[in-house]
Amino acid sequence: MTATALYEQICRKQSFLCVGLDCDLRRLPACLSADAEPLWTFNRAIIDATADVAVACKPNTAFYEALGAAGWRQLEKTVRYIRRQYPDLFIIADAKRGDIGNTSRRYAEAFFDTLDVDAVTLSPYMGRDTVQPFLEYPGKWAALLALTSNASAADFEMLPVGSGSRLYETVLHTSKAWGTTDNTMYVVGATQAAMLADVRKIVPDHFLLVPGVGAQGGSLEEVARYGLNDRYGLLVNISRDILFADSSPRFAAAAAAKAKEWQERMRLLMVNG
Amino acid sequence: MTATALYEQICRKQSFLCVGLDCDLRRLPACLSADAEPLWTFNRAIIDATADVAVACKPNTAFYEALGAAGWRQLEKTVRYIRRQYPDLFIIADAKRGDIGNTSRRYAEAFFDTLDVDAVTLSPYMGRDTVQPFLEYPGKWAALLALTSNASAADFEMLPVGSGSRLYETVLHTSKAWGTTDNTMYVVGATQAAMLADVRKIVPDHFLLVPGVGAQGGSLEEVARYGLNDRYGLLVNISRDILFADSSPRFAAAAAAKAKEWQERMRLLMVNG
Repeated sequence: MTATALYEQICRKQSFLCVGLDCDLRRLPACLSADAEPLWTFNRAIIDATADVAVACKPNTAFYEALGAAGWRQLEKTVRYIRRQYPDLFIIADAKRGDIGNTSRRYAEAFFDTLDVDAVTLSPYMGRDTVQPFLEYPGKWAALLALTSNASAADFEMLPVGSGSRLYETVLHTSKAWGTTDNTMYVVGATQAAMLADVRKIVPDHFLLVPGVGAQGGSLEEVARYGLNDRYGLLVNISRDILFADSSPRFAAAAAAKAKEWQERMRLLMVNG
Repeated sequence: MTATALYEQICRKQSFLCVGLDCDLRRLPACLSADAEPLWTFNRAIIDATADVAVACKPNTAFYEALGAAGWRQLEKTVRYIRRQYPDLFIIADAKRGDIGNTSRRYAEAFFDTLDVDAVTLSPYMGRDTVQPFLEYPGKWAALLALTSNASAADFEMLPVGSGSRLYETVLHTSKAWGTTDNTMYVVGATQAAMLADVRKIVPDHFLLVPGVGAQGGSLEEVARYGLNDRYGLLVNISRDILFADSSPRFAAAAAAKAKEWQERMRLLMVNG
């Protein structure tokens, strides 16, 4: 998917909502406890309930890998279902992979050929070798970790490096030359929203994928204030607040209502922004 | 497995060889082309052929994920087989994961509970939150990326940070306080072996997992010279040079011979070192 197609979908749906499919088995509604493939059943219901107000969804691979091969199968079913039923939904595998050479090419193959998602989150630690193979797939995206929303982001991401900027700023500066605004986006946490202004100075035109709004405490309004650009340029991820809005058999209707609430807040920010 | 148990195995086998199970489907012997589960069949043969001279093995998850759920199943079969047949073999999932909070706990569960390996490689970019859940499993290990063997390690790992040291040195300094020499090891590439001396100044007592020897050009003798400590403290990974020593139906015998060659070189370095 091109950046323009993503932009047009944002305009059409008046939404920059990404639904995070972090399906923690321990938190699924009790009505799914006897289901043979509960992650898949849950995901299908959540997607059906939210696809009209979301432009993207983001399964986090950890929650599937925790179930081993059976979990991967449920992830594959989820992606295939979305491709068939909601072909315009942008699918991000939140995998935070990062390897080099031949291995990195196999990861790109795993996510872009075998699983067939649109984007994969990647860790920049090992440098360009990690990212390059992902940039060679037309229409596919690398979503590179820049500044994350956790407390220990201070351990390394925030350190000043030789040039005077912080490590995450150096990652932005260096890596933006590797790809384009059509194949690279950045993960920037919402819990330090004011830093989005610093991020926007370096990458004014890139899409930013922003986790940390909702259950993690980030403010949507702050994120929009500092992160929106003239093509919107944001995908704000909400996971638990939508997925686990209700633990009864009516969980999907509750998720739909919650997703609609977030979309309405986004719509207002888009028209007033 | 404790560091002492690993040390004793190194002494017993006179080897610090780790066999990298980077089973690239494209490079498997032609005799496996009709096999329904070629990675698993190949791995079993390689393990049977090398377990007497290796102390560890390291499947790289990329090569399994490239085949989707079917690949994960073959990885699971491989690990279960090793646990049953060679219970002293130290199994490292080369997964380079790195996430935070709830997600990081699910990764630890995926690798330590569901898959049941001894160690997982992790990327330090997001800080302590990534590593902590892995350190809470008794007898299990986090293998943290420090200095990798690729050219673009220079992009970020080698940058000077505020304190004057390079980023990978800061990662070593900071992270060694998170765990112990019984649950933390470091990934240090062999292609810059002289830097192992700098690494050893910071973490004299930790195990180092060293890729890059063999097909990638690193020198075993240089690695041993700068990396060995008084408890050996090294796991040197060899992948392609052993796995693909021969592409005929005699591939396992060729792998056994090649692994034995590497072990003999290690034995000499241990007795003369």
